[in-house]
Amino acid sequence: MPPVSPLAPEGGFPDLPPIDGVEFATVAAGVRYEGRDDVMLARLAPGTTLAGVFTRSATRAAPVLDCEAKLGPDRLGGASGEGAAILVNSGNANAFTGINGVDAVKAITASVAQAVGVPETRIFTASTGVIGEPLPHDRITAHIADLADGLSPDGIADAARAIMTTDTFPKGAARRAEIDGRTITIAGIAKGSGMIAPDMATMLVFLFTDALADADFLQGTLAGLNLSTFNSITVDSDTSTSDTVLLAATGTSGVDATGKAAFGAALHGVMMDLAHQVVRDGEGATKFVTVDVTGAADEADARRVAMAIANSPLVKTAIAGEDPNWGRVVMAVGKSGARADRDRLSIRFGDILVAENGWVSPAYREHEAAAYMKSAELTIGVDLGIGAGAARVWTCDLTHGYIDINADYRS
Amino acid sequence: MPPVSPLAPEGGFPDLPPIDGVEFATVAAGVRYEGRDDVMLARLAPGTTLAGVFTRSATRAAPVLDCEAKLGPDRLGGASGEGAAILVNSGNANAFTGINGVDAVKAITASVAQAVGVPETRIFTASTGVIGEPLPHDRITAHIADLADGLSPDGIADAARAIMTTDTFPKGAARRAEIDGRTITIAGIAKGSGMIAPDMATMLVFLFTDALADADFLQGTLAGLNLSTFNSITVDSDTSTSDTVLLAATGTSGVDATGKAAFGAALHGVMMDLAHQVVRDGEGATKFVTVDVTGAADEADARRVAMAIANSPLVKTAIAGEDPNWGRVVMAVGKSGARADRDRLSIRFGDILVAENGWVSPAYREHEAAAYMKSAELTIGVDLGIGAGAARVWTCDLTHGYIDINADYRS
Repeated sequence: MPPVSPLAPEGGFPDLPPIDGVEFATVAAGVRYEGRDDVMLARLAPGTTLAGVFTRSATRAAPVLDCEAKLGPDRLGGASGEGAAILVNSGNANAFTGINGVDAVKAITASVAQAVGVPETRIFTASTGVIGEPLPHDRITAHIADLADGLSPDGIADAARAIMTTDTFPKGAARRAEIDGRTITIAGIAKGSGMIAPDMATMLVFLFTDALADADFLQGTLAGLNLSTFNSITVDSDTSTSDTVLLAATGTSGVDATGKAAFGAALHGVMMDLAHQVVRDGEGATKFVTVDVTGAADEADARRVAMAIANSPLVKTAIAGEDPNWGRVVMAVGKSGARADRDRLSIRFGDILVAENGWVSPAYREHEAAAYMKSAELTIGVDLGIGAGAARVWTCDLTHGYIDINADYRS
Repeated sequence: MPPVSPLAPEGGFPDLPPIDGVEFATVAAGVRYEGRDDVMLARLAPGTTLAGVFTRSATRAAPVLDCEAKLGPDRLGGASGEGAAILVNSGNANAFTGINGVDAVKAITASVAQAVGVPETRIFTASTGVIGEPLPHDRITAHIADLADGLSPDGIADAARAIMTTDTFPKGAARRAEIDGRTITIAGIAKGSGMIAPDMATMLVFLFTDALADADFLQGTLAGLNLSTFNSITVDSDTSTSDTVLLAATGTSGVDATGKAAFGAALHGVMMDLAHQVVRDGEGATKFVTVDVTGAADEADARRVAMAIANSPLVKTAIAGEDPNWGRVVMAVGKSGARADRDRLSIRFGDILVAENGWVSPAYREHEAAAYMKSAELTIGVDLGIGAGAARVWTCDLTHGYIDINADYRS
């Protein structure tokens, strides 16, 4: 077991409140790992509405394609009066497994549907782990009846552990919102230690709320918030074949959150918290880095610059070396393809103005910046000085630990 | 001094033929490095035609902007009956240095113009090294007269050494072509060990020929060949503020190469040779990797896929670990944004068919692929199976050596 990331939240896994209408069970099915739970089942109460966003990879995995079909234009995953269930395994991604992958999803969803008494169109699966090996789905289906018998409202912490691959800590977050004078609760779990982890694909997020919500509202809200949360983090610029974010609203609180800003704000809080936890568990990470871009010609350009900085191996290795190497930030701005004027660009490390007007700032003192770079949490600020476009993304540094994990993994 | 790259060409620096009309001189000016030559001057005979291609970075350096202006639509760099000169320093990139950078270029070009007796519009400069520090141009101008006195047709090997930054070996190549029954010669030198090197920016290439050539033909040929050579290599996906490729045709052979395919073929040979040498000197590189993409919807998609594979940290760390981790190649295809159909995709490592029809090939034996991955030179082949688009790019692996060089550089 690798040591827990130095950037892990203090206090360990949070004490998440149960969500009425959601029950969990986990089991050690031996899909790939020994001696730990590797399958989780979540059962969702009748009336639950679902929404999902998925990887845009052209080589996405069989479970992703199945979820997309079920949540697609036909909205089979929307509220239907019936219950629903989510089954997740770790250790094998069931990605690039051809017709075998489709058959495995079918076998699992049929088994779960029978065990929990809901139609197969309401069973959602996700798989995370090695790409290209057949999923031994019989090891999973052999445990479905036991899982259904063991369901409990208090099992979310075990579920967070069961879906881990190279994660060094389980990830959870919760928020409450007041709507029409009543309280709704949102809780979620995530796994991921890179946009893709070594051989392991990759980021999975499951969000649950007792709010009542229209399916279109739920989908729109999830997709909208995803851009500024999970789609604004990057560990290594590599995109998984399996990224999945599922949101289930059980409606058991009786509080209709449709169209309510307070619901979106609380959901944003849970998603951002989990997204940051994924970065904090980035492979080999020793620094948590916020990249803050303002003054771009438009939002798209701001995002282009922010991602160019956050994905640059030279910027990320400089951060690992605690080197205030602002020349590499200039380089990343230049290569991003965004509209930029060298002489209007300014760069800050934290509150320290490093460069402005096309050159190093007269007030800049390298020893101050070098001291700042020793912090575990850093902000790189770039103002392009040409417009109102802004974007913020999060990343980590690139260290020997990343090479160890990824170059030496199967050796 | 770091050890010479294990991928360096055998036999050391090649025995390059002199190019009639081109003379070189070098000097230790102490711009940044101690105890080695760091400035080179090349004088070009009257009648020389010049062409150039430059970084597309939005934050490009002062010498790049000056060269672009001189070689721009006004074609001031074209044949003019007068001579020309190229002055290059290593150790300082004169990039992101504001008005100081412009002044430094002006001081150097004025000094060289006086010493070699040609107009300033015919003096081209390049600088490579640290970004954001003022170029101490007086250290260079103090030596211009000595440089002009020391010019010699045989100095190209010393020139190749003087322009090195973190390069572990000097880079040179030459080819001959028969045109109308007569021989012309092309020789070139390059520096670079990444698209950008640590703090050091970055790839510079100088090409010389005794052929006579029309300026438009020369520019078109250089730009065209650049796409499949220097623009098809990547070490770390980072793009320099200073990339410069200059081609000078002295015309001293009296052989008109304008419109001659043999000239383009020979020039292509020199450029490809130098481009491969840059990859072979990639920071921390232990493997020279060809990525060969076929069957894409079009050329642009093929290039997108090839670059996504060549730039993927997970593919590059797998290669470093000699792991035939084809799942990561699938991932890179998926994230590239190119049109792809998972079930038509096939992947080869060398001659070994790894995956086809959306899954691992029935004939695939991992121990064979693992043995292949131990080679120092590898080819990753991807056929997308949907069209005729093809592209080939070259890269190296991502190792602890890269982190050492880039994270620990200023610590």
